[in-house]
Amino acid sequence: MAKKVLIIGGVAGGASAAARLRRLDEHAEIILFERGQYISFANCGLPYYIGNVISERDYLLVQTEESMEARFHIDVRPEHEVVAIDRGRKEVEVIAKGERYRESYDYLILSPGAEPLVPPIPGIDHPSIYTVRNMNDIDKIHRHIQQVQPQKSVVIGGGYVGIEMAENLRELGQDVTVIEAGPNILAPFDFEMARMLEKTLHDHGIPVITNDAVTAFAPTAAPATGSGDKSHRGPVTLTLKSGQTLTADLVILAVGVRPENKLAREAGLDIGERGGIKVDPYLRTSDPSIYAVGDAIEVKDRVNGAYSLIPLAGPANKQGRIAADNICGRNIQYTGSQGSAILKVCNLTAAATGNNEKQLKRAGIAYRKSYTQSPSHAGYYPGGNEMVVKILFTPDEGKLLGAQIVGEDGVDKRIDVLATAIRHGMTVYDLAELELAYAPPYSSAKDPVNMAGFVGTNILRGDVNVVHWDELPAMDPSTYVLLDVRTRQEHQYSHPEGALLIPVDELRERIDEIPRDKKIFAFCRIGIRGYIACRILAPHGFDVYNISGGNELYAAMTN
Amino acid sequence: MAKKVLIIGGVAGGASAAARLRRLDEHAEIILFERGQYISFANCGLPYYIGNVISERDYLLVQTEESMEARFHIDVRPEHEVVAIDRGRKEVEVIAKGERYRESYDYLILSPGAEPLVPPIPGIDHPSIYTVRNMNDIDKIHRHIQQVQPQKSVVIGGGYVGIEMAENLRELGQDVTVIEAGPNILAPFDFEMARMLEKTLHDHGIPVITNDAVTAFAPTAAPATGSGDKSHRGPVTLTLKSGQTLTADLVILAVGVRPENKLAREAGLDIGERGGIKVDPYLRTSDPSIYAVGDAIEVKDRVNGAYSLIPLAGPANKQGRIAADNICGRNIQYTGSQGSAILKVCNLTAAATGNNEKQLKRAGIAYRKSYTQSPSHAGYYPGGNEMVVKILFTPDEGKLLGAQIVGEDGVDKRIDVLATAIRHGMTVYDLAELELAYAPPYSSAKDPVNMAGFVGTNILRGDVNVVHWDELPAMDPSTYVLLDVRTRQEHQYSHPEGALLIPVDELRERIDEIPRDKKIFAFCRIGIRGYIACRILAPHGFDVYNISGGNELYAAMTN
Ligand SMILES: Cc1cc2nc3c(=O)[nH]c(=O)nc-3n(C[C@H](O)[C@H](O)[C@H](O)COP(=O)(O)OP(=O)(O)OC[C@H]3O[C@@H](n4cnc5c(N)ncnc54)[C@H](O)[C@@H]3O)c2cc1C
Ligand SMILES: Cc1cc2nc3c(=O)[nH]c(=O)nc-3n(C[C@H](O)[C@H](O)[C@H](O)COP(=O)(O)OP(=O)(O)OC[C@H]3O[C@@H](n4cnc5c(N)ncnc54)[C@H](O)[C@@H]3O)c2cc1C
Ligand SMILES: CC(C)(COP(=O)(O)OP(=O)(O)OC[C@H]1O[C@@H](n2cnc3c(N)ncnc32)[C@H](O)[C@@H]1OP(=O)(O)O)[C@@H](O)C(=O)NCCC(=O)NCCS
Ligand SMILES: CC(C)(COP(=O)(O)OP(=O)(O)OC[C@H]1O[C@@H](n2cnc3c(N)ncnc32)[C@H](O)[C@@H]1OP(=O)(O)O)[C@@H](O)C(=O)NCCC(=O)NCCS
Repeated sequence: MAKKVLIIGGVAGGASAAARLRRLDEHAEIILFERGQYISFANCGLPYYIGNVISERDYLLVQTEESMEARFHIDVRPEHEVVAIDRGRKEVEVIAKGERYRESYDYLILSPGAEPLVPPIPGIDHPSIYTVRNMNDIDKIHRHIQQVQPQKSVVIGGGYVGIEMAENLRELGQDVTVIEAGPNILAPFDFEMARMLEKTLHDHGIPVITNDAVTAFAPTAAPATGSGDKSHRGPVTLTLKSGQTLTADLVILAVGVRPENKLAREAGLDIGERGGIKVDPYLRTSDPSIYAVGDAIEVKDRVNGAYSLIPLAGPANKQGRIAADNICGRNIQYTGSQGSAILKVCNLTAAATGNNEKQLKRAGIAYRKSYTQSPSHAGYYPGGNEMVVKILFTPDEGKLLGAQIVGEDGVDKRIDVLATAIRHGMTVYDLAELELAYAPPYSSAKDPVNMAGFVGTNILRGDVNVVHWDELPAMDPSTYVLLDVRTRQEHQYSHPEGALLIPVDELRERIDEIPRDKKIFAFCRIGIRGYIACRILAPHGFDVYNISGGNELYAAMTN
Repeated sequence: MAKKVLIIGGVAGGASAAARLRRLDEHAEIILFERGQYISFANCGLPYYIGNVISERDYLLVQTEESMEARFHIDVRPEHEVVAIDRGRKEVEVIAKGERYRESYDYLILSPGAEPLVPPIPGIDHPSIYTVRNMNDIDKIHRHIQQVQPQKSVVIGGGYVGIEMAENLRELGQDVTVIEAGPNILAPFDFEMARMLEKTLHDHGIPVITNDAVTAFAPTAAPATGSGDKSHRGPVTLTLKSGQTLTADLVILAVGVRPENKLAREAGLDIGERGGIKVDPYLRTSDPSIYAVGDAIEVKDRVNGAYSLIPLAGPANKQGRIAADNICGRNIQYTGSQGSAILKVCNLTAAATGNNEKQLKRAGIAYRKSYTQSPSHAGYYPGGNEMVVKILFTPDEGKLLGAQIVGEDGVDKRIDVLATAIRHGMTVYDLAELELAYAPPYSSAKDPVNMAGFVGTNILRGDVNVVHWDELPAMDPSTYVLLDVRTRQEHQYSHPEGALLIPVDELRERIDEIPRDKKIFAFCRIGIRGYIACRILAPHGFDVYNISGGNELYAAMTN
């Protein structure tokens, strides 16, 4: 007899599972429940629709009820909310247009996603405050913008949804401020990398306030800066922990998401420590007839092994496909996520994969790091830009643990190569050897990924000692000398206090000017000349270190 | 005592070796011999300087004699040609400015590169015919262009140098024709992929003549179309094997290169079958004091295991570094090349890695293939373009053997991921699982690489039978039906003769219209709907196949 599969949630994970199920089983009965009005919409495109980058609302609707029915013969039920799972009878309870009914299943797939966090801050129900998750949210924001014509908006939360919304509201000409409670925006990035992104936001007219949080919202007494709205959607005053106040015609609340675990929890399925539904490698919940995928589940972090929430579309789509495979008897494992993520931040692209320093420290995993700054393509071919590549690797065999890249161009390429490398357990030695495709418009004969590999390799082999700028403040300044090996011009333009200038090309002749009783911390702009200086000085008995990432990284961290 | 290392050849491999040697050994004596006037220039940039894309000649000079001496304390000797190696005495013989002298060595590195082939065609010494290898060549071409102001030029040879030159001459407004003796341009690509590139060249006003060759050059009697030149650099008439004649004010001869093996051969070093210097995995020649790198050596093809010539800058640079490592006692292996290559062809990017079908056939390696056409980024975000991804993989475990991609955007990213995959022995199953970084401006939740993996996986698991367009001509048309599952509109616009139209969304209702006594070859535009059609029809007992790559590939091959 044909099997009957119910799917709860009709977007990334759910719609993917439905399509794949049908392709694998022409005879199955497949019903897709979606509580919202739309299935299969492009969540990830929502901010860009607000900014008019995506010009048509229809573009967001990847598949519709009709197209899924026609092509895949799936019984699509939008505006049907599943309110309970009766595991004993293998039935779910559904509410649609006020009516309640039951539907039986052989297999059930849960892909209910995650819901935006709404912290219990006084005044948070003010009508000018919105979260961003689905078509309905975005329609409301769109309407607000049309009617209120906000001039000032505030985005609370510097995660990727917050940052994408900030950029798109700014595209509309609004004054946008981002408020982030943590020390930096965009948690997948470490402090110094996020700093570069905060700076570019600032340069594009989007100030970022970090280490501060909203403690209260209140309707603004003064008249709105926005025009035209005589409704209740007036401006709102935000009070921050620091005491600062801000007013806004529009507030986007984007402080994170929480797995939609209510149905699963109430049905007695195992829930993990992070609040996600627990699944085995086959994406089966604690009930073997029920699978769960997407933002709602906990997955194994492939780098640190811990169960984590990795609410991203790539994993959700692939998990939906795998759940369908397994229901059709295939025994496919989902072996964990590594959190590969990317986003556009004004003129920059920021991307990360694997673990960052914060995660590694938390997990107690020893690591070493290196920064390299490499051109997106050959320097002599026009249009290239430098990107900063940070890699984290094990101190012994050099196995890659994580990577973060910030730059204008070609960032997406390098992060995907590094993501592939991490997934397959490659080391910095492997990166050095990769034979990537080179022609001047696309890269360099030594690609930025190779370069990161060379530098990592040099560190591990002990060919160079490195010190990181963030280690300096803790050191006794009388024990070291900062050696600036840049040109006179670069030095005069700006340098850390007390730095001794000897351009790298003069080092050999002026070696006697360098003190022998102290550590020598050599630096240049980005690290190459500092490295060469180390290779010149070390054979002469100096205790010399290259300041990784050079003065540029230092500047990014301190300005 | 400090070791003394001589390097022959001062560009990609040689200069890289020199810089690395110095970094590893501050005390070594290092002498770099270069027969030309310049060291360390950007060979790969030469065509773009001709087209004014690279606006300044100086940009091509990555390092100079002075900078290499100042930074790396290397004795750089341009315009010094090494004319003999005396292995017994460990000396080389050098000619500089007419003077001959000897220089001793502990270690010798050969990086003499390759020389352009100049076939013995009558009239080939006509002064308007040029090869493109170094600064001198490009200066001469540049002067020719300034003085003759050519209106018509012909490029002989459709390799990447020829195509890049053709594109850049066209940039200058010239009428450019490419002549290729083989069935298609750009040998790293298979016929149908190269076809797309020939088409775009044609569309950009660069006709390509394939399967034809020049049999004679002669000075043109009629007046030059070019103006201003009263010199001997007059127009030239080309006679082709087909009988066709062409005239040109400028001819670029780019029919390939041959390893510069003369010195090595005369010194009795082992030379391989392909004419390259033989080296072991440590890049040592048959004389353990002599290393060789770059275009002059034979390397192991990582896919088919045969010794091959892979004259590319990435390998040359890395080999130079490894030779230096080994001379400094490091024992680093160069484990072979996979021929990762990329080039810009007008609006398109073409890239390849690993083996193509021709190579696999020659090597007798069994393979399967698949074509997918995927958007460079999410369809709903503006500016995306489709790329065609061809992958070749083993029929048993699905190990990747090669990949070729043609598209407008994002090609470089996917080829580098695939190059990384091939290097580490990954399979189509691995591609399906890769967790690449997704946001709408950069990719799709299922990246083109994942998609290629899914499709490869489906083929291997037997979830779909595929047939390739190039297999059809050999089949008896009475044994199969072409089933067009596209829309009526698409069908009406164009379709292969005799195709039966049933749009995929109508298949289930109209299944009785499909003959049961024949093979069904389903096709759509690019393959997705054809695949879905197969998954609908197979369970009903049809012997159904998806035409891989769909009608678009067919059109590309036949138009
Ligand atoms: C603004 C925004 C931008 C994003 N950008 C990116 C990006 O650039 N890259 C990236 O990788 N990811 C991005 N994401 C994340 C990505 O969209 C999610 O990871 C992905 O959609 C998760 O898929 P899912 O199926 O688990 O959940 P969803 O896609 O959210 O689908 C869950 C659906 O289930 C429905 N549902 C829940 N409970 C019930 C019930 N009881 N009955 C019926 N229906 C129910 C919900 O209404 C919802 O529509 C973005 C998300 C947002 C909101
Ligand atoms: C126009 C053009 C475009 C290219 N584009 C690309 C590209 O996009 N991507 C890519 O990967 N590769 C490209 N290449 C190939 C790349 O440049 C070569 O693979 C690379 O330069 C090889 O390095 P090599 O050190 O072996 O030889 P070379 O860089 O050619 O250096 C060899 C040097 O040795 C000197 N020499 C030879 N014999 C002697 C002697 N007896 N005494 C003294 N000196 C000697 C020669 O004068 C020469 O300068 C391109 C090449 C050309 C010509
Ligand atoms: C669109 C959606 C319904 C999934 O549909 P889908 O049919 O599984 O996915 P695609 O349209 O990408 O097609 C992929 C299928 O076509 C096949 N395919 C792709 N190109 C092919 C080709 N050239 N030839 C043959 N088959 C091909 C793939 O193998 C795959 O089939 P499989 O899973 O059976 O192996 C679902 O992803 C969705 O709802 N997306 C929007 C919501 C969302 O993802 N949000 C988050 C991101 S914004
Ligand atoms: C330029 C040329 C001389 C090589 O010089 P090089 O010093 O080896 O190469 P680069 O300038 O790229 O620097 C790479 C070195 O800097 C190091 N480095 C790079 N970024 C670094 C950073 N941020 N911090 C520390 N070290 C860094 C690398 O580790 C590497 O050193 P290593 O080899 O000792 O590990 C040689 O490649 C050349 O002549 N190129 C032009 C010709 C050519 O290549 N033609 C073909 C292509 S057009």
